[in-house]
Amino acid sequence: MGNAHFDDQYSHQKVEIPAPKPFLKTLKSCVKETLFPDDPFRKFKNQSLTKKLALGLQYFVPILDWAPRYTFQLFKADFIAGITIASLAVPQGISYAGLANLPPVIGLYSSFVPPMVYAMLGSSKHLAIGNVAVPSLLISAMLGRVVNPHDNPKLYLQLVFTATFFAGVFQASLGLLRLGFIVDFLSHATILGFMGGAATVVCLQQLKGILGLVHFTHETDIVSVMRSIFSQLHQWRWESGVLGCCFLFFLLLTRYFSKKKPAFFWISCMAPLTSVILGSVLVYFTHAEKNGVQVIGHLKKGINPPSYSELAFSSQYLTTAIKTGIVTGVIAMAEGIAVGRSFAIVENYHIDGNKEMIAFGMMNIAGSCTSCYLTTGPFSRTAVNFNAGCKTAVSNIVMATAVMITLLLLTPLFHYTPLVVLSSIIISAMLGIIDYNAAIHLWKVDKYDFLVCISSFIGVVFGSVEVGLIVAVAMSLLRILLFVARPKTFVLGKIPNSMTYRNTEQYSAASSVPGILIIHIDAPIYFANASYLRERISRWIDEEEEKQRTLSEIELQYVILDMSAVGNIDTSGISMLEEVKRNADRRCLKLLLANPGGEVMKKLDKSNFIDTIGKEWIYLTVGEAVNACNYILHTCKFQSKRIESSTIPDDNV
Amino acid sequence: MGNAHFDDQYSHQKVEIPAPKPFLKTLKSCVKETLFPDDPFRKFKNQSLTKKLALGLQYFVPILDWAPRYTFQLFKADFIAGITIASLAVPQGISYAGLANLPPVIGLYSSFVPPMVYAMLGSSKHLAIGNVAVPSLLISAMLGRVVNPHDNPKLYLQLVFTATFFAGVFQASLGLLRLGFIVDFLSHATILGFMGGAATVVCLQQLKGILGLVHFTHETDIVSVMRSIFSQLHQWRWESGVLGCCFLFFLLLTRYFSKKKPAFFWISCMAPLTSVILGSVLVYFTHAEKNGVQVIGHLKKGINPPSYSELAFSSQYLTTAIKTGIVTGVIAMAEGIAVGRSFAIVENYHIDGNKEMIAFGMMNIAGSCTSCYLTTGPFSRTAVNFNAGCKTAVSNIVMATAVMITLLLLTPLFHYTPLVVLSSIIISAMLGIIDYNAAIHLWKVDKYDFLVCISSFIGVVFGSVEVGLIVAVAMSLLRILLFVARPKTFVLGKIPNSMTYRNTEQYSAASSVPGILIIHIDAPIYFANASYLRERISRWIDEEEEKQRTLSEIELQYVILDMSAVGNIDTSGISMLEEVKRNADRRCLKLLLANPGGEVMKKLDKSNFIDTIGKEWIYLTVGEAVNACNYILHTCKFQSKRIESSTIPDDNV
Repeated sequence: MGNAHFDDQYSHQKVEIPAPKPFLKTLKSCVKETLFPDDPFRKFKNQSLTKKLALGLQYFVPILDWAPRYTFQLFKADFIAGITIASLAVPQGISYAGLANLPPVIGLYSSFVPPMVYAMLGSSKHLAIGNVAVPSLLISAMLGRVVNPHDNPKLYLQLVFTATFFAGVFQASLGLLRLGFIVDFLSHATILGFMGGAATVVCLQQLKGILGLVHFTHETDIVSVMRSIFSQLHQWRWESGVLGCCFLFFLLLTRYFSKKKPAFFWISCMAPLTSVILGSVLVYFTHAEKNGVQVIGHLKKGINPPSYSELAFSSQYLTTAIKTGIVTGVIAMAEGIAVGRSFAIVENYHIDGNKEMIAFGMMNIAGSCTSCYLTTGPFSRTAVNFNAGCKTAVSNIVMATAVMITLLLLTPLFHYTPLVVLSSIIISAMLGIIDYNAAIHLWKVDKYDFLVCISSFIGVVFGSVEVGLIVAVAMSLLRILLFVARPKTFVLGKIPNSMTYRNTEQYSAASSVPGILIIHIDAPIYFANASYLRERISRWIDEEEEKQRTLSEIELQYVILDMSAVGNIDTSGISMLEEVKRNADRRCLKLLLANPGGEVMKKLDKSNFIDTIGKEWIYLTVGEAVNACNYILHTCKFQSKRIESSTIPDDNV
Repeated sequence: MGNAHFDDQYSHQKVEIPAPKPFLKTLKSCVKETLFPDDPFRKFKNQSLTKKLALGLQYFVPILDWAPRYTFQLFKADFIAGITIASLAVPQGISYAGLANLPPVIGLYSSFVPPMVYAMLGSSKHLAIGNVAVPSLLISAMLGRVVNPHDNPKLYLQLVFTATFFAGVFQASLGLLRLGFIVDFLSHATILGFMGGAATVVCLQQLKGILGLVHFTHETDIVSVMRSIFSQLHQWRWESGVLGCCFLFFLLLTRYFSKKKPAFFWISCMAPLTSVILGSVLVYFTHAEKNGVQVIGHLKKGINPPSYSELAFSSQYLTTAIKTGIVTGVIAMAEGIAVGRSFAIVENYHIDGNKEMIAFGMMNIAGSCTSCYLTTGPFSRTAVNFNAGCKTAVSNIVMATAVMITLLLLTPLFHYTPLVVLSSIIISAMLGIIDYNAAIHLWKVDKYDFLVCISSFIGVVFGSVEVGLIVAVAMSLLRILLFVARPKTFVLGKIPNSMTYRNTEQYSAASSVPGILIIHIDAPIYFANASYLRERISRWIDEEEEKQRTLSEIELQYVILDMSAVGNIDTSGISMLEEVKRNADRRCLKLLLANPGGEVMKKLDKSNFIDTIGKEWIYLTVGEAVNACNYILHTCKFQSKRIESSTIPDDNV
């Protein structure tokens, strides 16, 4: 080889091919990084068996981890928050149970057992557990197709419990199989848009309570809601509306002051409960319930009866129940984790998706055995919990205890609570959640993230919660695919007084080297971009040659591909490189590679591309590659053409 | 700032933030790179209007481009290939039309007009046009639901033409909207598995002809086919089987010899036609058709009647026809382009997905007006075309002419052609296509590609063509998502006698720098990997600190993130970096960035992260960052701790 001479002079260190690893070892480390990136077993290393057991128990039951550090200060905050969300849980539980065509009391039951279970197993500090609107609607839609809830309420109830059981089993299995990383695909922008949209939808739903409407659409999109409201103009109750607006004004005022001065924080926290008491007393004394102000009304006493004997495993509708369970389970879990995650981001702590899934699953399995139906962390209740200043999952226990006491003793007291006050509480919480400043920030920093956020918002508001989530996740994935399908390529130039080569578009000082074209590829070379890269590289060469013709500079003789950012390559990518090499040979250009990574070198070696291109044309840095080229260009100025043509057949042998 | 001093000394060039571009300009260049990567308008620049028109016409009608260079040599090859595929087109056309519940002659019509149109507009040299099995089956399944083809054959036929019309319109629009890059998502590995699977399926289907069975399953999966065959053990005809095996042996033998010696190439090419003639003569003289050897039988004379008046745009079933058209159109197009692409890879030329879609669309629109139903480039016919040595799309014209002559004059001659001979021709062609050597190569070079290939194969063989394609594409996309979701991170070390830092796993000579941890991130930082990277970086720091404790080395003080391979970042990624920065501050570590790219710098700037980290802690190369750290570590050895703690509050202001 005629290259040995300048080779020795310029190259200190050759690009190495990593030592081959056994296939099973590679597979093992690959699976470990994919499914166990948090390395949960690290803590267990070099520990005694007792300690290991204790740590394992702490992992699956997080309350064992944080309970010893729990203080009375924290409890005070949690207590207030728990009472506040309990005052919300009662009307919410009742109305959502109605959406699912279930007896109202089932909604209350669902705010007792599952929150207890979650408080022990969950890793979110702010999530408040309860039944939710969208899955409730879905349950009645899917199970209602096979059993009419009015004709056969017992069978329908059994199927609902069975569906809840399977939802729990499915959620827990996803968590145990370590598929929690699915949660990572809900980006910050998706969650922002989703939360804004969900808050808008929840507000719109509250118009029913504020306007005192009896009939209302079961849809959540803005078009259906508006149509439902304006088609009932004559049903609007001004008494209800005035009361609602007053309470809303009161709540917003307290929140405004508490934001202005942290000392007023307690006023804002107590406001919802105060409103409920005030509203109930007002209705009791004015008998406003007879003048169009709706109240909660009579509630049955007593806590959850067991229901494990009601699980209808041998029913002919088992398949429908399983399907309903899986569909609603996935949607409920996605909402719960998205909500938990968003508050975790606000408060800067980490949520383990796998643990959350197991917690949701266990709480639904337990719920299905104690007369509860599907629960998750609903957005509205969690937001109120957060606003009321909760610190740990103890607020869920307080709420559950409060609901238990309510079920046992206090149901008569809620008889006169006007629904409109509860609507005001929810609206006031929601308005604080729509974060348009964050959306403006997204627009400034990253236009595509803004697009994802807005699609998520529009999807939720004009479609449904699922539509919004699906659109946003699909768009987020499209971004990743586009990044790989249309990778950036750019020409590198020399930074003056250095051996460093950088993007000529980013660095005004970087100047291109005559006779040498350095192309940087900014993504892995995969099937999705192989065709594009082949076209693009050939276009770069065309443009460079044209430029040289017009400026009559020195003729282009070398093309260096900077592979620093090429993390991986597949067989389509290798074929592409082979074509680029053939194309370069045809044009009498020499192809060089700079800094291919370990994974890339391994594959180039196995596919014999290294022999095709010639080992001596692969350099550790762009600088060394350029030096080698310049060595031939200048030292052997007149012979270079001849050396070139004599080495081409050499390479192809 | 206390850093100004060593700053001046070590850093020659600061990392630049590219000048902001107007939003619309960025959007335009982004759309251009995504949809027009081949820059089709480049040729049109600085040309006269006439020349522009001529070039435009050449772009949409490729035959104008290559016809002037067409030679008699090429025609000889194309003629043989065209005649060979014509001999295949007749029985295939008839049997596939049967699958679609259409009169046999419609199958022949479909091998006359569409190939002519494709020859003018298509960019593949080897694709042979005709009707195909899977879309034929789908048409009868989808349209058969609304109209019974036996009770109302006229309406059924009209709906088939209408569906074909809409399939064409849909295909052409995809092409005109420049969505041809969808084709790039069919990777080399996918196509390899798909071809192998399709070849296996086609072979299995031919068992019907070989065994002389009359009833046969309409499914294509191996289980259904085997069940169909072995449930009819008593219907097997040994006469047919013997004849089939003889011809198959003859065909394989000729192919074997032609592979051994290129001089025997013509024998292999003529073998199929010879078989057809031999078989027909044999049956004619022995009257084997009366002894269980099935023959093509009587065929109606005359070429395609026009059918544009049959398009049922006002039918009540129009929606069904449109849906059928879109579904079958997409599947047919995917098959056609996959087949065309695979032969293009073999022969090393490029297929323009957009042009192909327009060509398919136009040929189906034209077909729907001339009594043809859905056509594409079927795998089996194209393989035979390729094996018969075709050179250009002229073989399609030859085939079409041959089919025309057949329709006009020769239909009686095919009366005695035994189906078993045609089955042998197809099997022999298919066996040459199953490329297990390429699959072994995939296993050697890239295990994941092998997995994609095998899934595609198993999907086609055990499921259906669509299942195979969907599974393989989904797995290919999963690979891209996993690359981004679980990016490689590794520690860099110094290559001796240089300023270069490389992966310590790849380069045995690279040694880590005491007190400094350099982490290289090998993918864009997106929502999908933000959580993972935060965990992983913190794990790297933990491991490094532990290592230093056990080896009692110099204390870790600096963490350098090498951003060379981070092509882009989104808002989730920026939040992650902010958390890493906070985490580093908490541990009294200084965070540095090395070589962030233009896009990344822009976003870090807009989100104020550059101010958070401090502009003076971002370096052009890892080497410069390390030098700056070493400067403080060594020069200010005893003061460093104090400088550190005094600069932290500075940065946070």
